[in-house]
Amino acid sequence: MLVSARVRAAAAPPIPAARVWAARYDGRAGPPIDMTQAVPGYPAHPELLERISAAAGTIEAAGYGPIDGDIALREALAADAAQFYGADLTAADFAITAGCNLAFVMAATAAAAPGDAVLLPAPWYFNHHMALTMHGVDAIPLPCRPEDGFVPDPAHAERLLTDRVRAIVLVTPNNPTGAVYPPAVIEAFAALCRRRGLWLILDETYRDFLPEHVRPHELFADPGWKDVVVHLYSFSKSYCIPGHRVGAIAAGGAIRGELMKVLDTMQICPPRAAQGALAWAVEGLRGWRDGNRTIIAERAAAFRAAAAQLPAWRLDALGAYFAYLRLPEGQTAEVAAERLAAERGLATLPGSFFGPGQDSHLRLAFANVDVAAIRQVPGRLGVDATAT
Amino acid sequence: MLVSARVRAAAAPPIPAARVWAARYDGRAGPPIDMTQAVPGYPAHPELLERISAAAGTIEAAGYGPIDGDIALREALAADAAQFYGADLTAADFAITAGCNLAFVMAATAAAAPGDAVLLPAPWYFNHHMALTMHGVDAIPLPCRPEDGFVPDPAHAERLLTDRVRAIVLVTPNNPTGAVYPPAVIEAFAALCRRRGLWLILDETYRDFLPEHVRPHELFADPGWKDVVVHLYSFSKSYCIPGHRVGAIAAGGAIRGELMKVLDTMQICPPRAAQGALAWAVEGLRGWRDGNRTIIAERAAAFRAAAAQLPAWRLDALGAYFAYLRLPEGQTAEVAAERLAAERGLATLPGSFFGPGQDSHLRLAFANVDVAAIRQVPGRLGVDATAT
Repeated sequence: MLVSARVRAAAAPPIPAARVWAARYDGRAGPPIDMTQAVPGYPAHPELLERISAAAGTIEAAGYGPIDGDIALREALAADAAQFYGADLTAADFAITAGCNLAFVMAATAAAAPGDAVLLPAPWYFNHHMALTMHGVDAIPLPCRPEDGFVPDPAHAERLLTDRVRAIVLVTPNNPTGAVYPPAVIEAFAALCRRRGLWLILDETYRDFLPEHVRPHELFADPGWKDVVVHLYSFSKSYCIPGHRVGAIAAGGAIRGELMKVLDTMQICPPRAAQGALAWAVEGLRGWRDGNRTIIAERAAAFRAAAAQLPAWRLDALGAYFAYLRLPEGQTAEVAAERLAAERGLATLPGSFFGPGQDSHLRLAFANVDVAAIRQVPGRLGVDATAT
Repeated sequence: MLVSARVRAAAAPPIPAARVWAARYDGRAGPPIDMTQAVPGYPAHPELLERISAAAGTIEAAGYGPIDGDIALREALAADAAQFYGADLTAADFAITAGCNLAFVMAATAAAAPGDAVLLPAPWYFNHHMALTMHGVDAIPLPCRPEDGFVPDPAHAERLLTDRVRAIVLVTPNNPTGAVYPPAVIEAFAALCRRRGLWLILDETYRDFLPEHVRPHELFADPGWKDVVVHLYSFSKSYCIPGHRVGAIAAGGAIRGELMKVLDTMQICPPRAAQGALAWAVEGLRGWRDGNRTIIAERAAAFRAAAAQLPAWRLDALGAYFAYLRLPEGQTAEVAAERLAAERGLATLPGSFFGPGQDSHLRLAFANVDVAAIRQVPGRLGVDATAT
């Protein structure tokens, strides 16, 4: 029996592949350090878990909810986003989703039909590329350069546009590089999209880990955003509950009604147990979230200091959750990642998992581990570097 | 900005449309009776909710789980299915999904690429048609006839096959008609699929509501099922927890590895809170599930008796959750459904929501309401019928 040619063309799930390497590690270089998956290295707040637990035991949470999520959470998220972006955003702009991966799948399905194309900065988040490939949408790579700090160039993007392109995807703070795109760059992309009739799918999963009082862009200040921007958000990282699968989409204008069809078809409703608790947490855990921002900033600083001890390596980008580290001359990413995981107990993802031309980089999710573990990174990498 | 032409071609979500009609009802004919959505009309077992609540409060359930679900639930479901189907099924055959709608989306994505086609018995479950349409896969209708009790004909199916067809979808017990396909029919479809190199996507969401000791088919007794069958299951109806979004796929052979790519991309992992509790419930609530089978059978019998009081109406099919009722001569489904909901307080779905040529039928989800409410159905329908 044949399987979809588009699914065959998609990459294999990367995280399990990296786990296989890590499983071979015998402990010789110290305790294993897992910097593969973007999971918070500290637990969810106990009161959030208590509230999720209380909701999960109710008959109400066992039943279907609205297609686009519980209104209390949509209102809470809209109020938070309004404050964060300094814009007039309301519950009507937001839909809750069964995680942010599905949010991307649903947004991309609404924006682009099979046979259409989407511009995807490279390196990319692998599941974005897999989703477009499976859906029959061509992902046209928009190469990002180390010398630009892996920030994509709107002028370059414009040169790559064809009649088939329906959307441009931006992830900022970026996965895998960690690059935080300057507001002017994000706004130039939005202007390009408006001019050319494209959707800007703007994934801001990591926005709560930006430095405090830094507004990532001014797009939402223009009520016309609804004709251009489809914004994605995740509760997984900010509230440390990826297992509860809660994300969100902000979309208006022509796409909102169409998106409801996709939501109904793919999720019926997002899982309900965590929604009520999150509606409380958005405001109720604001102080805790700000504290996490500080923790992650400390880890970022620790990682920067650690990387500075490794003259053969180059820190090409860093931000929010991730560092994108250039390997010493002559090493290739997949070989290095396998050896680091299996022999040095340091699990990372090779750049090659994130697109073509990434053979010289490793992605390290430094947010996953504490400062003490980050301080061990130079030892693990350094020995390895000299061993080559 | 353009929206995906395929999503524009998909139908609007039907349940909310029907709810709008019901919201206009002023109570004049008695309390409202909601027979629209397939939700169990009794609550989840208290011990299941307690266990979900306990799990939902843990740090473990807040974290990512395996892409294809927690092993304990896969093992429990496999053991249950092995017993139910009298076959050698193991955890390796099963993947847990974020609901059965997403299970269908993921299975269809793995089986058929955009540009391919799938045979879909008509009337169909609307979300199946919407999913295929959005994915750029042509849903070729396989018309089912009232005189056949809405059971599809494998010989007819074979005549409709083209080189582009990659799969045939069967839902049994059926949504919307309630028809329970005879084992020989299901097996003839499987033989057809094997002969022509197609996948049989077999949605058995309602299998726990078949009469006891009735085996729906013998497909799993042949180890070669893995080359033909992709089976779908839902925990939502059997355990009354649609809000927790847990479904399953059984698939092996060539499609299993490819399916893992789709699962990773669309769900990352299914929501975790309910999985451990369900692993217990599969065996722990066996007696309760059997009791529900009896409750639903009583409701089916009550509905059959109620329909017999309405000479102008004809009960064309009934089974598991649904009855498919033919309207009196001269009425059309959407007009009748709107009037029944808004004026008689009886919310149903018109056949037209389930495909072309269904203008003479209503779908009534009798499982949603108790026997006392079902006994009121003739009064609500009868007055309406004579008023036309």
